[in-house]
Amino acid sequence: MTTLRVALAQLPVRVGDMAGNATALTHAVATAGSWQADVVLTPEMGVCGYPVEDLLAEPEFVRAAMAATQQVARSTDRTVALLGAPWVTGSLPGAAGARPAGSATDTRERGLRNVAVVAQGGQVHGAHAKTLLPTYSVFDDARHVEAGPAQQDLYRVLTPEGPVTFGVLVCEDVWSDALVQEVRRGGAQAVVVLNASPYHVGKQRLREAAVAAAARSAGVPIAYVNAVGGQDELVFDGGSFAVDGDGVVVARGRSFATDLVTVDLPVAAEVDPSWDVVDLGVTHTERCPLPPPPLTAPREVHDEVYTALVTGFRDYCTRVGLPQVVLGLSGGIDSALAATIAVDALGPDAVWGVGMPGPYSSGGSVDDARALADNLGIRFDVVPITDAYLERHRVLAGLLTDRTGATGQPVAWENLQARLRGTTLMTLANATGALVCTTGNRSESAVGYFTLYGDSCGTAPNPLGDLLKTTVTLRDGTVLPGVYGLAQWRNDRAAAAGQAPPIPAATLTKPASAELAPGQQDSDSLPPYPVLDRLLLAFLEDHASARELAGSLVADGWDPQAAAGTVDRVLTLVDRSEFKRRQVPIRIKVSRLAFGRDRRMPLANHWSHATAAVSVEPPMA
Amino acid sequence: MTTLRVALAQLPVRVGDMAGNATALTHAVATAGSWQADVVLTPEMGVCGYPVEDLLAEPEFVRAAMAATQQVARSTDRTVALLGAPWVTGSLPGAAGARPAGSATDTRERGLRNVAVVAQGGQVHGAHAKTLLPTYSVFDDARHVEAGPAQQDLYRVLTPEGPVTFGVLVCEDVWSDALVQEVRRGGAQAVVVLNASPYHVGKQRLREAAVAAAARSAGVPIAYVNAVGGQDELVFDGGSFAVDGDGVVVARGRSFATDLVTVDLPVAAEVDPSWDVVDLGVTHTERCPLPPPPLTAPREVHDEVYTALVTGFRDYCTRVGLPQVVLGLSGGIDSALAATIAVDALGPDAVWGVGMPGPYSSGGSVDDARALADNLGIRFDVVPITDAYLERHRVLAGLLTDRTGATGQPVAWENLQARLRGTTLMTLANATGALVCTTGNRSESAVGYFTLYGDSCGTAPNPLGDLLKTTVTLRDGTVLPGVYGLAQWRNDRAAAAGQAPPIPAATLTKPASAELAPGQQDSDSLPPYPVLDRLLLAFLEDHASARELAGSLVADGWDPQAAAGTVDRVLTLVDRSEFKRRQVPIRIKVSRLAFGRDRRMPLANHWSHATAAVSVEPPMA
Repeated sequence: MTTLRVALAQLPVRVGDMAGNATALTHAVATAGSWQADVVLTPEMGVCGYPVEDLLAEPEFVRAAMAATQQVARSTDRTVALLGAPWVTGSLPGAAGARPAGSATDTRERGLRNVAVVAQGGQVHGAHAKTLLPTYSVFDDARHVEAGPAQQDLYRVLTPEGPVTFGVLVCEDVWSDALVQEVRRGGAQAVVVLNASPYHVGKQRLREAAVAAAARSAGVPIAYVNAVGGQDELVFDGGSFAVDGDGVVVARGRSFATDLVTVDLPVAAEVDPSWDVVDLGVTHTERCPLPPPPLTAPREVHDEVYTALVTGFRDYCTRVGLPQVVLGLSGGIDSALAATIAVDALGPDAVWGVGMPGPYSSGGSVDDARALADNLGIRFDVVPITDAYLERHRVLAGLLTDRTGATGQPVAWENLQARLRGTTLMTLANATGALVCTTGNRSESAVGYFTLYGDSCGTAPNPLGDLLKTTVTLRDGTVLPGVYGLAQWRNDRAAAAGQAPPIPAATLTKPASAELAPGQQDSDSLPPYPVLDRLLLAFLEDHASARELAGSLVADGWDPQAAAGTVDRVLTLVDRSEFKRRQVPIRIKVSRLAFGRDRRMPLANHWSHATAAVSVEPPMA
Repeated sequence: MTTLRVALAQLPVRVGDMAGNATALTHAVATAGSWQADVVLTPEMGVCGYPVEDLLAEPEFVRAAMAATQQVARSTDRTVALLGAPWVTGSLPGAAGARPAGSATDTRERGLRNVAVVAQGGQVHGAHAKTLLPTYSVFDDARHVEAGPAQQDLYRVLTPEGPVTFGVLVCEDVWSDALVQEVRRGGAQAVVVLNASPYHVGKQRLREAAVAAAARSAGVPIAYVNAVGGQDELVFDGGSFAVDGDGVVVARGRSFATDLVTVDLPVAAEVDPSWDVVDLGVTHTERCPLPPPPLTAPREVHDEVYTALVTGFRDYCTRVGLPQVVLGLSGGIDSALAATIAVDALGPDAVWGVGMPGPYSSGGSVDDARALADNLGIRFDVVPITDAYLERHRVLAGLLTDRTGATGQPVAWENLQARLRGTTLMTLANATGALVCTTGNRSESAVGYFTLYGDSCGTAPNPLGDLLKTTVTLRDGTVLPGVYGLAQWRNDRAAAAGQAPPIPAATLTKPASAELAPGQQDSDSLPPYPVLDRLLLAFLEDHASARELAGSLVADGWDPQAAAGTVDRVLTLVDRSEFKRRQVPIRIKVSRLAFGRDRRMPLANHWSHATAAVSVEPPMA
């Protein structure tokens, strides 16, 4: 059976670093050549990084990306290189043509496409423009580029085993069985896909299932390369793979790491192409033997999520050029896990923990924080906020006290403590050129159980911002590890390696408390976290209504009135804290639907999710 | 000549307020009926408000919007009502049909369209689905809805003057001459358009020019209704209008206010329709005479911008249910203008000014602030931050002092002052249930000349966030009023009305200073504002490169090296402050391209605008 030797160059995405990306691409193409690969795949938009957002509106940026692509193309020899880049439509070889009739969903001409440039022997021979433009979840492709036309060129190479015709796709294109079938019917014996596919829990399984289904439905093998590395809230997890024409995975690269996987992919039977074919000619005249392709096993889910957080955190801090962080250590579970992630990302010398006891802090809080810092080997200082709090309280309470002696909403004084802590951390960070790491989790963020400009201060990405407090299992069986579960897993990993577990036992077991008022516990204000988290997940990710949420509690044995009251309280809190979430630092996405780019909500909004279920009459239509 | 009597019901957008919107729509339809209008137009998505963003992903929300639309439809009598709403594709009368072939730019089926429902006699007779989906600038339509098919139904009414066939469009549809020509060729004698078109300087002129050009090119009159009111960063400015088949404006409603304009629109000659026509039958059997339609003159540009800011600020604060604000008054021009806008929006009793002198505040700062407060008739208190600053400085400097006695980056101590002020304002606001109004302008925001979590604290929209410090004239002659220009205009308006000008003369004339270090002035760190503002505008709105910007300075007589240095410094500051802008409050959009929804940039980014112009070699292609 004829095979196509495909190299999957799983490289980092580095936004805006044309020179660095061009060097990495050139090197990967040369390495693939030394393996006598027929084709080398590199990540979608790998020349300029992805997503680059509105930088694509800037002519200089696009010109630089095109120039860098030409530079890599000039370095190509016999192996065909597929290079992801933005390209001005008018100058697009092979993938230009008129916009398909009836597809004008927007009057704005982009003049730009997201392409895979096809280069060999120092020349650009053509390009494939992405046809399906994801415009949902974290994706805004339709904002930036035009869709490629329907029938684009195929490419034929003469391998040592004979001629092979292949089709090129970009990312979303391969999620459509119909499109892969068209490419096969057009004459392709193999399909190669460039991707920049961001991580969430269970994503690799979804990817492989979609690509395998497309391969089976079209009877054609597919090679899929992904990017790696963190870019703002997104982490690209690698895991590049290839499936044969039966949809069986025959090669898989590492996750969360640079890799180069080379595989001899058995191609489908030759058919007379009905689409235009660009003849690239001979790739190699002989072939060295390959070692068996890697089939790296997927990581266990805690390992996977933890590694995603470490990767996203590390890449952000190093790429903005400030690989040092300061964070507040309260003795609680959230700051303990965040500090551990920061240390695993940047090393203990780059992390500074600060205990900031206030008037209502428990005695254990500083002790537990110090124990954590000692375990992690990081600097730890204690900077109380009590004097500052008393000063501001005296001055402001004096201004606010009414005739009855009341000083307004008590939450103002709780928030004051959190804001003096945030101010303290920001001052230390600004003075030393470090980033501040905030440590609030997704459960707290959802219900607004945090202080804007207080504990939410952060100039590094929030490593916990997309983690619920507790572990939840989705309906499809996917496990979504929470803060407690990840902390326990990290301790267990250390123990298994014969190291001291970083997170103190007391931190793992004591009741959650913000310690902003005497004897305060989270459970005074919120339902128990396991209940809260289940409601949040169904509401945020499955758009469950208030009625459905209350029904699920009743099915668990809750009193109907208590269930309705709890759901009402939770959804009202979620609605009322949109304005707070709008101003928090980015968080690293690990869930299907994270706060941030994934969920865009109006702030001024009369719609109440809490009462929606009862106020709606069904439409007549 | 036959006329179609069209009523333009220019109503507020109220996101999520289905009950309130339905009541307002029902009332407007009835009023139009009392004028014996044949057709009444209401705003795009008027039933649920616009933009509602990801609320459209929630089935309950869409069901409620559809139910409210049905409720308004049931109230219709003889006048044909056009109602803007989201609609589930499968249940769409008249505008369903297959998605046009080749238009699949996205694999995600939305199942939803943005429609104008056509109702009469208590019944829904059809609907037009928006065909062109703006997905640029502040718009994300392709994220939420599918495009309507190409040839949708036309509608025929029997007016007292005879039969008239008309076509329906939604917003972006009418910006395409080709689409309007198609509708005319299909058989329409008039075109009606539902809009939710947000304001920026010069927008009304653009709208009228585009619609007039389409009308002329197709030889068909067009009636255009717009929404009014503020929704988060957007302000809908009304100004609904109608043009005849020669593109002459024959009616124009008020700007920034609810209005109902009724006009007898001369229709184009009858042609045999080639598209399907829904026959709605008799509207009215007789017609009362109409007064001449209003032709409200556009506002002078300062008036227009100022009114936009007042409208956006007022609507946000009242819609979130917290129509009281606290703001810091520094004696400077920015806080003075912001306070004046807040008072014009909410009244003097709703605005609380706080002077917060620190160690480097000038003596005049509190005096000027107090004078402003007295002029505006608002509460004013002085809450020094000096003691709090000294306490935090003592504790933190102790921790930071190195062997040489240095205490790290000096900016940390400047920021500390700003953060103690932000904390003070947030405490007062939280205690009293008010919003905090931040007062930073667009020039400062662009170059990061503000303190994150300090002077940028704000839970109300920033009224100055889209205003440059100085007035700039665009190349097309559009004047973009700045902070100084608007302040002077507001004073002049007061003087012209025989009132005391609100903003003290000293505030208008003293040099700009943050007063965070001894003798500090803005001009120590930044180019003069007129230079800075011109560079920013060309860079942000026209994507001018560093080379082009430096060239423009040289053309003005600058030394080339000084020009390059200044441009380099400004662009470096803009690039380095993306992370700060990501966490600031929303600002009210008045420019073509505001920070926020309009400009979406990566944070971790190796691309430098400052050096872009010299590092790029031109592509070979």
